[in-house]
Amino acid sequence: MGKREAGEQIDEIRRKAGISWEDLAGRIGRPPVWTASAVLGSHPVPAAEAEILREALSLDPELVDALTRQPTRTADPAAAGDPTIYRFQELIQVYGPALKALIHEEFGDGIMSAINCSIDLRRAEHPGGDRVVLTIDGKFLPYDWVSAQG
Amino acid sequence: MGKREAGEQIDEIRRKAGISWEDLAGRIGRPPVWTASAVLGSHPVPAAEAEILREALSLDPELVDALTRQPTRTADPAAAGDPTIYRFQELIQVYGPALKALIHEEFGDGIMSAINCSIDLRRAEHPGGDRVVLTIDGKFLPYDWVSAQG
Amino acid sequence: MGKREAGEQIDEIRRKAGISWEDLAGRIGRPPVWTASAVLGSHPVPAAEAEILREALSLDPELVDALTRQPTRTADPAAAGDPTIYRFQELIQVYGPALKALIHEEFGDGIMSAINCSIDLRRAEHPGGDRVVLTIDGKFLPYDWVSAQG
Amino acid sequence: MGKREAGEQIDEIRRKAGISWEDLAGRIGRPPVWTASAVLGSHPVPAAEAEILREALSLDPELVDALTRQPTRTADPAAAGDPTIYRFQELIQVYGPALKALIHEEFGDGIMSAINCSIDLRRAEHPGGDRVVLTIDGKFLPYDWVSAQG
Amino acid sequence: MGKREAGEQIDEIRRKAGISWEDLAGRIGRPPVWTASAVLGSHPVPAAEAEILREALSLDPELVDALTRQPTRTADPAAAGDPTIYRFQELIQVYGPALKALIHEEFGDGIMSAINCSIDLRRAEHPGGDRVVLTIDGKFLPYDWVSAQG
Amino acid sequence: MGKREAGEQIDEIRRKAGISWEDLAGRIGRPPVWTASAVLGSHPVPAAEAEILREALSLDPELVDALTRQPTRTADPAAAGDPTIYRFQELIQVYGPALKALIHEEFGDGIMSAINCSIDLRRAEHPGGDRVVLTIDGKFLPYDWVSAQG
Amino acid sequence: MGKREAGEQIDEIRRKAGISWEDLAGRIGRPPVWTASAVLGSHPVPAAEAEILREALSLDPELVDALTRQPTRTADPAAAGDPTIYRFQELIQVYGPALKALIHEEFGDGIMSAINCSIDLRRAEHPGGDRVVLTIDGKFLPYDWVSAQG
Amino acid sequence: MGKREAGEQIDEIRRKAGISWEDLAGRIGRPPVWTASAVLGSHPVPAAEAEILREALSLDPELVDALTRQPTRTADPAAAGDPTIYRFQELIQVYGPALKALIHEEFGDGIMSAINCSIDLRRAEHPGGDRVVLTIDGKFLPYDWVSAQG
Amino acid sequence: MGKREAGEQIDEIRRKAGISWEDLAGRIGRPPVWTASAVLGSHPVPAAEAEILREALSLDPELVDALTRQPTRTADPAAAGDPTIYRFQELIQVYGPALKALIHEEFGDGIMSAINCSIDLRRAEHPGGDRVVLTIDGKFLPYDWVSAQG
Amino acid sequence: MGKREAGEQIDEIRRKAGISWEDLAGRIGRPPVWTASAVLGSHPVPAAEAEILREALSLDPELVDALTRQPTRTADPAAAGDPTIYRFQELIQVYGPALKALIHEEFGDGIMSAINCSIDLRRAEHPGGDRVVLTIDGKFLPYDWVSAQG
Repeated sequence: MGKREAGEQIDEIRRKAGISWEDLAGRIGRPPVWTASAVLGSHPVPAAEAEILREALSLDPELVDALTRQPTRTADPAAAGDPTIYRFQELIQVYGPALKALIHEEFGDGIMSAINCSIDLRRAEHPGGDRVVLTIDGKFLPYDWVSAQG
Repeated sequence: MGKREAGEQIDEIRRKAGISWEDLAGRIGRPPVWTASAVLGSHPVPAAEAEILREALSLDPELVDALTRQPTRTADPAAAGDPTIYRFQELIQVYGPALKALIHEEFGDGIMSAINCSIDLRRAEHPGGDRVVLTIDGKFLPYDWVSAQG
Repeated sequence: MGKREAGEQIDEIRRKAGISWEDLAGRIGRPPVWTASAVLGSHPVPAAEAEILREALSLDPELVDALTRQPTRTADPAAAGDPTIYRFQELIQVYGPALKALIHEEFGDGIMSAINCSIDLRRAEHPGGDRVVLTIDGKFLPYDWVSAQG
Repeated sequence: MGKREAGEQIDEIRRKAGISWEDLAGRIGRPPVWTASAVLGSHPVPAAEAEILREALSLDPELVDALTRQPTRTADPAAAGDPTIYRFQELIQVYGPALKALIHEEFGDGIMSAINCSIDLRRAEHPGGDRVVLTIDGKFLPYDWVSAQG
Repeated sequence: MGKREAGEQIDEIRRKAGISWEDLAGRIGRPPVWTASAVLGSHPVPAAEAEILREALSLDPELVDALTRQPTRTADPAAAGDPTIYRFQELIQVYGPALKALIHEEFGDGIMSAINCSIDLRRAEHPGGDRVVLTIDGKFLPYDWVSAQG
Repeated sequence: MGKREAGEQIDEIRRKAGISWEDLAGRIGRPPVWTASAVLGSHPVPAAEAEILREALSLDPELVDALTRQPTRTADPAAAGDPTIYRFQELIQVYGPALKALIHEEFGDGIMSAINCSIDLRRAEHPGGDRVVLTIDGKFLPYDWVSAQG
Repeated sequence: MGKREAGEQIDEIRRKAGISWEDLAGRIGRPPVWTASAVLGSHPVPAAEAEILREALSLDPELVDALTRQPTRTADPAAAGDPTIYRFQELIQVYGPALKALIHEEFGDGIMSAINCSIDLRRAEHPGGDRVVLTIDGKFLPYDWVSAQG
Repeated sequence: MGKREAGEQIDEIRRKAGISWEDLAGRIGRPPVWTASAVLGSHPVPAAEAEILREALSLDPELVDALTRQPTRTADPAAAGDPTIYRFQELIQVYGPALKALIHEEFGDGIMSAINCSIDLRRAEHPGGDRVVLTIDGKFLPYDWVSAQG
Repeated sequence: MGKREAGEQIDEIRRKAGISWEDLAGRIGRPPVWTASAVLGSHPVPAAEAEILREALSLDPELVDALTRQPTRTADPAAAGDPTIYRFQELIQVYGPALKALIHEEFGDGIMSAINCSIDLRRAEHPGGDRVVLTIDGKFLPYDWVSAQG
Repeated sequence: MGKREAGEQIDEIRRKAGISWEDLAGRIGRPPVWTASAVLGSHPVPAAEAEILREALSLDPELVDALTRQPTRTADPAAAGDPTIYRFQELIQVYGPALKALIHEEFGDGIMSAINCSIDLRRAEHPGGDRVVLTIDGKFLPYDWVSAQG
């Protein structure tokens, strides 16, 4: 069974068990965004955390096995155009060149790492309506022509 | 002249004048991400701010005119695959389904607005290497079946 | 079972039971467009309405379960080029820039929300042949640079 | 000069002349959606209306000529992903199958014409924020196997 | 079972029963092109004709049911590049602009309906080799800005 | 100058000269569909016919030269989605598999040639509205494993 | 069962039986390229040849049935980018315009038929390494405006 | 100037000078397919041959310069769907898997080189109509895990 | 069973058996990159090596059979956008034109073979963090117009 | 002027000046792959190196200016399918999953950086024909959930 298919089944078990992502994240001592993305198939879950998840959700070995496997992190065609996800893509479309310009101005030629990176999502109250506050925190990596030999 | 082409010319003028985005943003009293994206063609610049930019950068009327025009905010094909921008797309690919799950858990069925939204990008020092911290702050919009008549 | 697959099965049950969408919508007290799109997989159906649907159509628990789940609202590849649906896409192709121009003229820079939005479809008699009258009624959202912190 | 390029130039002239689409539509006695889409290149403008536009905006013969020409009504790549236009596409993505189901239920097998069709866009006040009300009104066309010979 | 899958199964039953499309069309009193496209999934077959087909081919209820259902008429990816079908697409590629020009010259701004339309395919003898003669006969629909309200 | 660009210029000259395609076709003794497609760039025009066109429309040598050149008959991206042309593509989408089935039934395994082929478009009066009658008449080509050597 | 799926199964049976394509082609008295493409799903196999194949490979009736059926000859997505096949596509990319130019110079406006066509593939010894010699032999078809009526 | 644009201009000069590709190939002592593809931009022309072409066609230095430059041999979008070229692509679509099977049977795992390769196109007379005979002759390259170090 | 599906199953067996790719490669006396790509479906495994793999991993005959079969080496859609693989594609995007320029400067017009080629991947220690060192070693193939006949 | 367009012009100047990439790289004290990719538009050239290039090639200020500008490193559509570049893409297609498996086995979950990375291309002599030896040397980056705050 693929990690994504396993993730959907675990999510359904979680929902029926009435256990929130927040709660699940607390049990394994990881942030909620990491927890949800790992369970849904984007990260390998270490054995210890997988054991906690197995107990909390009474998972079959096959599902636990899928959790611990190394993922291929490709785009999920069933999700790419979903309005909740699409808004993030639209933000990159509208603000991407500006973010690039400011990264280069502040740090020089390079990128924000999507590998050495953490993401936090929280609710912020606001008189005009509560807000989703998403913080992406990635290491700056300068273009660097390094060679192992010298 | 299109807003994007105008934006590239203004950016070049800015670079040669040695004026940073940070500085330019300060002069018009707007955040840097808004300023860079507006100048590069993603927002209409109000007349007052456009006048300040005209003076600061000695812009031709044609460029000022392009700044104030209403944009079509489509994807810039010259930017979509650039590594600095691509990393943001990869993050949505890898974490999009998790963000969607957590938004629905915390707020219910709906989206984070990409219209009522602000973005902040700053440098954070870190012993393992300085970090890009990007904060996206958008109003939650619940799916709501409202009609003007009822 | 996915929501879309469930929707097709419920639609088939509905058709064989001889219950119209109009009728089904009346039973749950929702507009027909909302009802059909929710059953076909585009909205989560609240528990109370799902219970009414279960009774009306003698649905299996698995189908009821799919109805209440949170959807991913992606394009249905099995529907995108269907002539009845394509005509709406063609209208956006032909009239989209004009609608954008008029929205900006009347409301300023922003969008019509596709989230805070209702849709009505009705028949209108006409000597030249009866007409489909589709009313889309969405909240105007101005581009607004709001931050939770300030 | 192509109709679309001409449309952009006329739009710019219109904007500088401070004449609204609403006003322009009134002068030629046509609805605003028709007027904006025709000027922007989606319809041939009849000679009489083109003459009124020429006078109102002091248009060059080349622009008038482009206005009256028969259009090819293809998608405008510069507009397809713009957020204001994209929301309409998203609505078709989310509600298309429901609209198809209701058209078939009410009218039988067929389509809403995108050719014999009118569109109206107006502002409706609402305590929760003013709304864009878009009415699409198209003739129902049943699938009909007609032959000129029989 | 989908209409297309049902169509393939019925086609196979038809082939083994040694009943030609021509013959099948005669039994239900419909033209061959309509009959073949309806059986292969492009049209809903009315109950009376479906009953005749059921008898002629000893069809299972599930297949009859699929025949009578409302289709979604999307492109068949298994057929689009087939040489026999591709030649028709090539003709539109080569002659489409000319057909458009002649329709506009003869009828004015509008389209040939693909809904109110019949198609006939017959063999014509010719000394240089027999010919396929395809006649497409569709109602002209002028662009017409009609509204139900007045 | 490319044949397509030349075709657009000649079409504009033709329109201003008030000469119909029908008329132009009569002058060079060719059918209207051939004439329009050849002038618009889909066929090489023989020298004699090109000379008649040059005289009728007072064409520059460069345009005459383009007319006589061998074309590359690729799809015109500016035309592919135009509603008047799209309807033909939709017909192939809806009826292509049926046409293929009937060609194979009547002629055996092979295709209708798009090279040895003529096309006629005419108006047919009809009480329900006049009709476009398009006749495509192509030689049947059976799959035939012929070799020059044997 | 589809012809392509059947072809893969027959190929596997053939491989295990240790019967080469060359040998199989000899048994049915057809060239190897025709034989391999027909068995793999690109041609209908006549009843007599299908019977020989059935005997030689002890095929199930379902496989024989698939062999004799009329194919849809679409691109095989599982094969299009395979390096052995891709090299042929690259040759068309690099030499296609030259082949077109030479066909037009030698034969006039027209095509080499892909329907009335045979293909031969053989090994040729060469001191620099043996060579694949592929001969494509197709009838020239001139563009010819023939009508059944005249 | 790009090699492809230069190639089109040289081809036009060649056509007006009444010099055939055959003739041109003879003058530089190269096969016609090589000559046409090189002039049209797919190969760098050595200085000696370029000088002969310059004289034969009275070429400007800029065109000669383009001839001798190293090409990027990408697909020509203006040519890919042309019927004369498309037929070759269709042949690969229909026969590609068979050619792959026969190459592997005769030579083992590997490819026919598209780099060490020659192509010949000639006319062959035939009672059923003259034929285009295309011979592609490429070195077989076996998959071979060679390393410079071992 | 396809080679890719078989490869995934063998990989899972390997992982559970605690046998590294390095180890597996040693047992069959092949380099690790060759071994992993062959097992995952990109190469036919010779009978002797397949027998060793069968023993080491207790493989079913069906899996062994898949290992030895000739592959079609197409892109794996489940892998193309994975970040670990994507970085290699990005390198070609960023450095491809430079590599092409240097190959042509050093070797003349031609390519580096992807068929006569070996690949090595090793870890290199580095004070700034250990490095992946990938060596691609392919034979240079000059464009060479060779014919079997001359 | 864009960096890519500038790169093509500088390359042409370089070629006519008879200065090799190797030589140019030596003058600015950078590796050849870096030098060629930077000049062709993939890296910003520091002022000191740009001055050396200006002198060596007598470049106009506009070209020097383009050299020093920050690039957008998107795919070059004019290069992506070129055979010399395509072979690298094919290698990733064929060996990508194996490289991913070996990186994960040796280093754990992560990627080889395409930013902290150097590339070397050299000729290696070999009795079977000289070889291109390409060494890609990138820092391993483990997936690491680091936050600036904790």
